[in-house]
Amino acid sequence: MISARREVLAQDHDLTFRVTAIATGTRGCILAPDINLEDALERVAQSAPLSSLDGVQNAPDPLTLIKQADADVLFETSPLNPADGEPASSHVRLALSRGLHVVTANKGPVAFAYRALRSLAAENAVQFRFEGAVMDGAPIFNMVRSCLPAVKVLGFSGALNSTTNIILSSMESGRSFGESLAEAQRLGVAEANADHDIDGWDSAVKAVALANVLMDADLRPSEVIRTGIRQVMAPDLLRARESGNILRLIARGERSRTGVRLTVRPETVRLGTPLATATGANNILTLKTDLMGELSITETAPGVEQTAYALLSDWISIYGARDSRV
Amino acid sequence: MISARREVLAQDHDLTFRVTAIATGTRGCILAPDINLEDALERVAQSAPLSSLDGVQNAPDPLTLIKQADADVLFETSPLNPADGEPASSHVRLALSRGLHVVTANKGPVAFAYRALRSLAAENAVQFRFEGAVMDGAPIFNMVRSCLPAVKVLGFSGALNSTTNIILSSMESGRSFGESLAEAQRLGVAEANADHDIDGWDSAVKAVALANVLMDADLRPSEVIRTGIRQVMAPDLLRARESGNILRLIARGERSRTGVRLTVRPETVRLGTPLATATGANNILTLKTDLMGELSITETAPGVEQTAYALLSDWISIYGARDSRV
Repeated sequence: MISARREVLAQDHDLTFRVTAIATGTRGCILAPDINLEDALERVAQSAPLSSLDGVQNAPDPLTLIKQADADVLFETSPLNPADGEPASSHVRLALSRGLHVVTANKGPVAFAYRALRSLAAENAVQFRFEGAVMDGAPIFNMVRSCLPAVKVLGFSGALNSTTNIILSSMESGRSFGESLAEAQRLGVAEANADHDIDGWDSAVKAVALANVLMDADLRPSEVIRTGIRQVMAPDLLRARESGNILRLIARGERSRTGVRLTVRPETVRLGTPLATATGANNILTLKTDLMGELSITETAPGVEQTAYALLSDWISIYGARDSRV
Repeated sequence: MISARREVLAQDHDLTFRVTAIATGTRGCILAPDINLEDALERVAQSAPLSSLDGVQNAPDPLTLIKQADADVLFETSPLNPADGEPASSHVRLALSRGLHVVTANKGPVAFAYRALRSLAAENAVQFRFEGAVMDGAPIFNMVRSCLPAVKVLGFSGALNSTTNIILSSMESGRSFGESLAEAQRLGVAEANADHDIDGWDSAVKAVALANVLMDADLRPSEVIRTGIRQVMAPDLLRARESGNILRLIARGERSRTGVRLTVRPETVRLGTPLATATGANNILTLKTDLMGELSITETAPGVEQTAYALLSDWISIYGARDSRV
């Protein structure tokens, strides 16, 4: 995405870049003053190690790489352990403490360490941005920050997990749970082990990220009242449909006397309401606010490009060069 | 809204203000170094002229007032003539040329004079902001500007007129067109003469505003291919409902070889899709983009407070004091 847009980024956003370090799960970690992105992508496509590129230096692991990199920004996209938010949180912490801006699509650091990382970023006069943590590049965090000034978020509800949306949509058409899960996997939305989606952990981590950032909570995923979709049976879905409803796994945040209460569980959703747009892979979030009432954002059939765009939009925002189009 | 939030605006946004001029349709036009807003509101509530306030000077009309006002920002909210965008465009033009920022909830100036006003604002180093022109304070223009950098808007579709949404929703329940229009008027959504809503002019002006700002078009409302809802009959709505659809007045913008093509007409909308959230007074806009796919925003049951918030959010954005919460 950024390779193909070098000129637009320079012209419209005054943004030029060099890639000085890349850490991968299975292709090694490399450093160099100016890594050719196209060459690096070619090696990955050929299943070759990145160290086979000319003139690059190896690092033993991502943390060492972050320590040694000559860089202004870290893009963090490691796979998440939803039990503790690692290794992403450590990557982010190290980069911020070294004075790098951090852009991540990872919800873990926001759910497990938001307050600490926000303070660390402020201390080091850098930015910690994470639009992709919830609903990919659909503006949620940036929208509240930039477009809803003075607004207080009173609560939220959302269908934030594509895998369960696809499974429940598919079961509505009469397919079994197993067939529907296989369908989500075939579409590339569900991973081989989809337990974290099905049991509501993915939604719970996202709910915590939303609550911690938008509602000033300081919760952890284990504090979410959570029920997955394993108990949802085809007759439940058919019965709902007959009365003009659908069933979806809904993440919900509400202010209570003691703070913010988070739930993730199958809920009946009336057709025609914003939450009912969670068909197929769609994601939807409704924010309940004081000054703007209820606002909902629906992201239609997101793919990996929307996640990439989340990183790109955060990166452009950090450097703040205003787009002159609008 | 701003009276009640003086402290929050000062603390969170570093924004203090004095009201130095007020122009009204029926209570006169006044100038003073520091008008007490609460007193002014009280006079309006008592149907008394604003000139009865102590120490104020009268202006004969809004244009003279804009010429004489000692001000940094004009908030423009005059009723719109959808045939030519006046008097709003003249108000905005005069204020910008005097070096005032302009915030308006009026779609007329954007639909009839966007390019000229944008240039005039740039020449005078001030801002022309109009979030409220479409969907009140729901972030549309500001979202594309601030949260979707580098994204190209390829097209849009939306149900942007509350009156027709209410009428069609009500007719679905078996009521007649006349009863449904009366319902919209009783709710305070439709005006006594709702022809502009029913015949699609309101939606057409909004479509032009969206196209001119987000798609770099330079169209006028008369160029929109437009059909209102007068020909929609109860059996059409029932038939649609039987096959899982609803009918709504949809404004649509698409890029064509010769530029941007705009239509406003009743369309069949499938339940469960974002456009189908246009029930009751709800407004919904779907943006089709290159990098972020399709994004939809639904505003639930907007009222006059959401319009006021549009002005407030634009005003805070002009002064750019970043909210530190997020």
